[in-house]
Formats: sequence, structure tokens, C-alpha cells
Amino acid sequence: MAEGYSELANERVSAVNGIEYAYRDTGGGRAGGVPLVLLQHFRGNLDNWDPALVDALAATRRVITFDNAGVGGSTGTTPDTIEQMARDALAFLTALQLGQVDLLGFSIGSFVAQQIALVRPAAVRRLVLASAAPQGAAGMHGWAPEVIGAVGTPHTSPEAYLGVFFADSDSSRHAGSEALRRMYTRTQDRDTATTWATREAQYDAVCTWGIPDHAKLQRLSALRLPVFVANGDSDPMILPHYSYLLAGLIPGARVKIYPDSAHGFLFQHHAEFAADVEAFLPGAS
Amino acid sequence: MAEGYSELANERVSAVNGIEYAYRDTGGGRAGGVPLVLLQHFRGNLDNWDPALVDALAATRRVITFDNAGVGGSTGTTPDTIEQMARDALAFLTALQLGQVDLLGFSIGSFVAQQIALVRPAAVRRLVLASAAPQGAAGMHGWAPEVIGAVGTPHTSPEAYLGVFFADSDSSRHAGSEALRRMYTRTQDRDTATTWATREAQYDAVCTWGIPDHAKLQRLSALRLPVFVANGDSDPMILPHYSYLLAGLIPGARVKIYPDSAHGFLFQHHAEFAADVEAFLPGAS
Repeated sequence: MAEGYSELANERVSAVNGIEYAYRDTGGGRAGGVPLVLLQHFRGNLDNWDPALVDALAATRRVITFDNAGVGGSTGTTPDTIEQMARDALAFLTALQLGQVDLLGFSIGSFVAQQIALVRPAAVRRLVLASAAPQGAAGMHGWAPEVIGAVGTPHTSPEAYLGVFFADSDSSRHAGSEALRRMYTRTQDRDTATTWATREAQYDAVCTWGIPDHAKLQRLSALRLPVFVANGDSDPMILPHYSYLLAGLIPGARVKIYPDSAHGFLFQHHAEFAADVEAFLPGAS
Repeated sequence: MAEGYSELANERVSAVNGIEYAYRDTGGGRAGGVPLVLLQHFRGNLDNWDPALVDALAATRRVITFDNAGVGGSTGTTPDTIEQMARDALAFLTALQLGQVDLLGFSIGSFVAQQIALVRPAAVRRLVLASAAPQGAAGMHGWAPEVIGAVGTPHTSPEAYLGVFFADSDSSRHAGSEALRRMYTRTQDRDTATTWATREAQYDAVCTWGIPDHAKLQRLSALRLPVFVANGDSDPMILPHYSYLLAGLIPGARVKIYPDSAHGFLFQHHAEFAADVEAFLPGAS
């Protein structure tokens, strides 16, 4: 039986930019397939992916998670722009000699994924944007006060995490507790915690990305690859509104809003979301 | 028992712009309520509203249909801009002394409804945009060749109408035949057919509205009223894509895409759509 995400080894690769990247690589049994690379959320590291989601995705394809420059177990400094994060992510993809990949960007990772697809279209086959928004969209200049107050503090709590990533219902909060439990199943070789410097730089990047600029919305018309946009119906961090905006601006987009869920809808609805991603992506080999 | 839409008298009102407007007025039993005014599609007149939809809407509120300037039984000349159509519609609302209204704009009528809400925000309480798109959106420069080839000819046929307004499935085509049957139940005092001059002017207006202009998308951020955006999932005339764009650009929008249906989803799903409109609009009195 294949190893689950909770038991995977931490691996490292050095890129030409001098960064040594921490990553995990799973579901690789199907040689020759296009890998799916995941781009993580604000302040997240390798351990902040729900193993249930990664394992469901990896049932049919190679799935790679990584810490971008300066984040968690990777070396270097976290940059304060999405543009530089995209360059750093591309250096990682090059270092692993992955060729063309599918990308799944989550939250700030969805910003990086959009930028990668715009900067190097040939590198991306298909794009999944989870809890996402376009650059320059009105109202995206930083998280709402209650959100940054919950997940932007020096020491965050499970309660604060649940309040942003899960909806205000018993069923969603229960799903959140289960997701947290799964993330903490791993007790050995956990990833290095992200630092305050990473938090500061990432939030600078989030606010810079969100400086209102209507003209920037037009960038998305250049995305000529198939895109799947998804969010929870009660996300307080990036409103579902922005998923519709992405779906309306990207010529080949489809959109799905998941019920009774918030920023972490993809963990809560891991089986359904993984099946939707599987249906969206061509066969891995 | 209240009269159904098929039996309603044609009424006329003169406005200060010199136009005599043809209209029908139903569901008026609830005095003091905010009326719902319907704005018709390309080449449509009073008889092109499905009586099943109007009667369902009129079960709980006053509903008014009318021919805009130059269209069907109204006098005057059909203008070739959405801007002038909005002025002409406002003159009709003023002539009837309606005060604030709810608007339901269908297709080209949805363009006019957006313009009315931008030009005179105080005149509109809530807005329903059916089979709609924003001004200037990429890809909206006229209907697709097969669509204008079907419904833009001098003499249209029921088959051509069904091919655009209903989806390519037995269930949708059957619903289309039923809608046509209901529209032709009325045999006396039918409205005057729309002319070729109306078709030409309306299509000029459609193409002018659709001249690509990304900056124009920002107009919608000024809509501060609640808006319900709806379309059929297979509309070949105005793609559902544009409903997502509207929902992403209008701050207070909600969106629903109806299954197994096309441009005429609101006739096919008349009961469900009327219930959704009823849930969206505040009580009529």
C-alpha cells in the first residue's frame, strides 16, 4: 500500500537561484504523468495540507507539495511580492525537472498560480484556483479586520484557524476539527514552522496584490488554459464573489461554490473536491 | 379569479417625450406595492412574454410589461443605443407615475435595465438580470453567427426560436414548444409585430454595447442595489460566463444558472424562476 501524506519523507532540492526547497512527493506510481503541484496558503507549510485531500488527489496522479523560498523548511527569504513568489516557484519546478505541470493554488497560492500561468504559460497545463481572487479587484486590499485579527497574530490558535477556514455551523466546525486532527497525525519530521518574517512579507504581498486597479483585471483574459475556480460559500477571507469574478474574466473557466464551508472548503469537502479536480484534469498519464 | 396575462387588455399611455407606449398591467390587487417592470428581449413585443411566467410573478405583486419606443404597438422610432432605450423606458415609468420599481431585464432588456439603474439609481429598488452581460465585455460584440442567423433574419421560424431560446435536449425543446403554445393562446388583440427597422436598430445597439472596452466593466461597481443574475446553462446567445462576470463585478449580486436550458431559461423554468424572484424581491406591499 502506498504511503499516505502523513508518512512521506521530507525531501530537498537545490535550485539555480541558490534556494534549497523542502518538498514532499507522492502518488508517483504512474510514470510519465503530468504532476499536480500544490501552492500553499498564507503562513502555511507542508504540514498545513490536509493529508485526506493530498491522498485523495494522489490516488490518480503524482502530487507535489513544497515550501516556497523562505517558507517553513526551505532556505532563503520570503519575498513581499507575488511576482517574486512566482519566480521562486518556477525555480523549484525547474529544479525538479517537472516539465509541464498542473497547478492547484490555494489562497495566496492561487495568486502565485495565476502569476505563473501568465509569466510562463507553457509550464502549466491546467489550473485549479481555490479560495482565489484576481489581482487589483476592488475590496481585496488585505483581509477583513476580523480575519487578519484571527490568523495574522504572532501566535495563532486552532480556534482562530477554524473561525476563518470553516463555516459557523456545527457540521463545518466538526469537519475543521477532523482536518486539524489529520494534519497533526504526523508527529515525526514535521516541517519547520513559518516565521513572523514570512507572515510579514506574505501579508505585504497580499496587500500589494490587492491594491485596487480595475485595469489589472484584464490580465486574466490572457489565460487560455482550462481553469477550475472553487470556494466555500461562506469564506470570510476571500469572498465567493471573487470566484465569480475570476470565472467571468477567464475565458475557459468553470466555477463551483461548495456549501456550508469557508476558506478551507477543500479540506472540509476533500473527497468531493478531489473528485471534481480529478474530473477537471486530464488523465495523469 | 384574476385575469391571466393572455386575457389582459392592451393599454396605452402618452409620455412627455411624445411617445405613446403600449403596455399591460396585471397583479395590481395589492395596492401600494412596488411594481415589477419587465424589459423585453431582442425583437420581442408584449406577446413574447410567456404568460406562465408573468402570471407566476403577478401572483404576489403588480407586474407591468411594455413596448419601448418604436417597438411593437408603441409609437416612435426604435433607437440604436442602449442609452436612448433607457431614457425611453424612464419616460414610460414616469408617464405611469410608478415611482420606484423593481426591474426585470431580459437579454437586451437586461442591458437597458443596467443603464436605467446607473442613470437613475433612485428609480430602481432591486434588479433582476436574465440572460445578461455587462457593457464592453470581451466577446460580446454581437451574437454568434449561428444565433443571428437563426433569430436575426427577416422572417423567423418557431424552429429557429427554439434553437436559441431552448437547449438541445428533448426536455428543453418540449418546454419550448409549451412556452410557444402559451404565447399563442391569445388570439385577439395581439400586439403589433416588431418591424425590420426595430430589428436593425436593436442589433446596432447590441453591437455598440458589445464593443470591447475593459474599462466599461467598472461601471457595475456603482450598482449598490441588490441584483439577481440568472441564465440558462446552455445559452448560445449570451453565454453563462457573462452572468458570472456580472456577479463578480456587481457588489451586491447573487447568481443562479439553471440546468438544461438556454436563453429562454426563465420561460422553461417559469415556476422555479418566479419563486426565486419572489424570494429575492421584498414583499410587494
